[in-house]
Amino acid sequence: MHILWNDQLVEREAVKIDIEDRGYQYGDGLYEMIRVYNGQLYMLSEHLERLWQGAEKIRMVLPFTKEGLTDNLKKLVALEGIKEGKLYFQVTRGIDSPRNHVLPDPEKVKAVLTGNVLPYQRPVELMETGMSVGVVPDTRWLHCDIKSLSLMGNVLALDEAKRQGFDDAVLVRDGKVTEASAANFWLVKDGVVYTHPDGNLILPGITKMKIIELAHELGIPVKETAVAEAELFNADECFTSSSLKEITPVVKVNEKIIGSGIPGAITKKLIAAYIADVNAQCGESDNR
Amino acid sequence: MHILWNDQLVEREAVKIDIEDRGYQYGDGLYEMIRVYNGQLYMLSEHLERLWQGAEKIRMVLPFTKEGLTDNLKKLVALEGIKEGKLYFQVTRGIDSPRNHVLPDPEKVKAVLTGNVLPYQRPVELMETGMSVGVVPDTRWLHCDIKSLSLMGNVLALDEAKRQGFDDAVLVRDGKVTEASAANFWLVKDGVVYTHPDGNLILPGITKMKIIELAHELGIPVKETAVAEAELFNADECFTSSSLKEITPVVKVNEKIIGSGIPGAITKKLIAAYIADVNAQCGESDNR
Repeated sequence: MHILWNDQLVEREAVKIDIEDRGYQYGDGLYEMIRVYNGQLYMLSEHLERLWQGAEKIRMVLPFTKEGLTDNLKKLVALEGIKEGKLYFQVTRGIDSPRNHVLPDPEKVKAVLTGNVLPYQRPVELMETGMSVGVVPDTRWLHCDIKSLSLMGNVLALDEAKRQGFDDAVLVRDGKVTEASAANFWLVKDGVVYTHPDGNLILPGITKMKIIELAHELGIPVKETAVAEAELFNADECFTSSSLKEITPVVKVNEKIIGSGIPGAITKKLIAAYIADVNAQCGESDNR
Repeated sequence: MHILWNDQLVEREAVKIDIEDRGYQYGDGLYEMIRVYNGQLYMLSEHLERLWQGAEKIRMVLPFTKEGLTDNLKKLVALEGIKEGKLYFQVTRGIDSPRNHVLPDPEKVKAVLTGNVLPYQRPVELMETGMSVGVVPDTRWLHCDIKSLSLMGNVLALDEAKRQGFDDAVLVRDGKVTEASAANFWLVKDGVVYTHPDGNLILPGITKMKIIELAHELGIPVKETAVAEAELFNADECFTSSSLKEITPVVKVNEKIIGSGIPGAITKKLIAAYIADVNAQCGESDNR
């Protein structure tokens, strides 16, 4: 397996991360996860735009251009021969020695990029049967719009839900639903689709952005508004969205069955539209 | 320079951190920083106790005992011949491939320890002149009692203060003073010392614990209570506490001079008591 390491494609074994990489000592960096369909990188420019915005927010200088990174990501996918896959990459603030909380001078300390691509298939079964979520307090930091490597809050929220027997967490802060543990969260009531507005409490999901666009095309009204926890239990449908799991129906919240316990009609319409968009952007492939 | 890498002492260059170490991809781990005085590890057992408590909170299994770790840390300090120094070590949840938010089975994925010791001197000048702090919103997660590697919130808070020209940040959440960016925060008013109570909003500092003990011995009343931001500007004295910077007087908060702009009497008493305790525990050394 090859890794994109800064601007080089190297064997995985050749990559050596330094103990004083700020990613390792401070979770100081950003990441993106992009689906590969039919050998194409879906919504690549939107992911790169978010990365650059995140870098500005954390005041990290990216030592490459969008064009340069695009070329290298495409080379990696081609080299690995991946048609259906997931491309992960992260950028840390670089190696600063000795360890120091103070942000290093970007002239002296260059950000470190690592990325890999793995085979991955659309989770068709999960999308047909749906999943359960458990309500977990949202105890993450107040810059959830930054796709930061400091992910312990997300990881522990998922674990909390898993230990209670759920597939994922639905996070609630100050009585309002924010997100799933690593996905945006959506709720359908009386034909209207609700999701949390962008801002500092949630990630501005690339898939979220696409779903809003598709819903508009389908004439399905979308309200970006924070809904109260109690509304979860009155929802007609719920689903999550992320680049990897696309649109995943939620059929149970805590012990409450949502709708009739199977993916709802609006959710299924959005799934079909999403898949159609993927096919239109990337070309159809037999093995999705 | 040698690194403690799991249970081995190796040359720095020999250590290779994996790209899929959860410390690197999720900030999923814990750390401690311990002062070495006269070749001795000050408050070692308290640091280890906090590490073990943190591991329980994040449900990480530590693949070593306190005794085993103590031996290895002491061997590292001896090998490096450090008399006055700082010992840093961190433990991540280990290498889990492929990357997955779900916590790995600790039977299959072992935590990874890395640590080093560097020469370090008490910052005498800073302790004599004092420093400035700027008020910055506390936007960190709600488990600040965990000494986690997901430190981006701390790092950005410090940077925010630095960019405004201050030495450190004093963090305020919901109108109450919590901590500095990587230290506990203290305020003296009418002879009483105030600091935030332990709980999920601050780190239970080892130095904090020691200061409370020393204040009791000196007959200085301590109230562990959250003070309002406005109280900062009425304080007679302020200081921060951490293992590295011990007790650092704060002589300016935003543009307001605290007291007479020099370290206050109670702060100086506590500094003297702290140094006496260090000398009693570790033995005096010429070069502190």
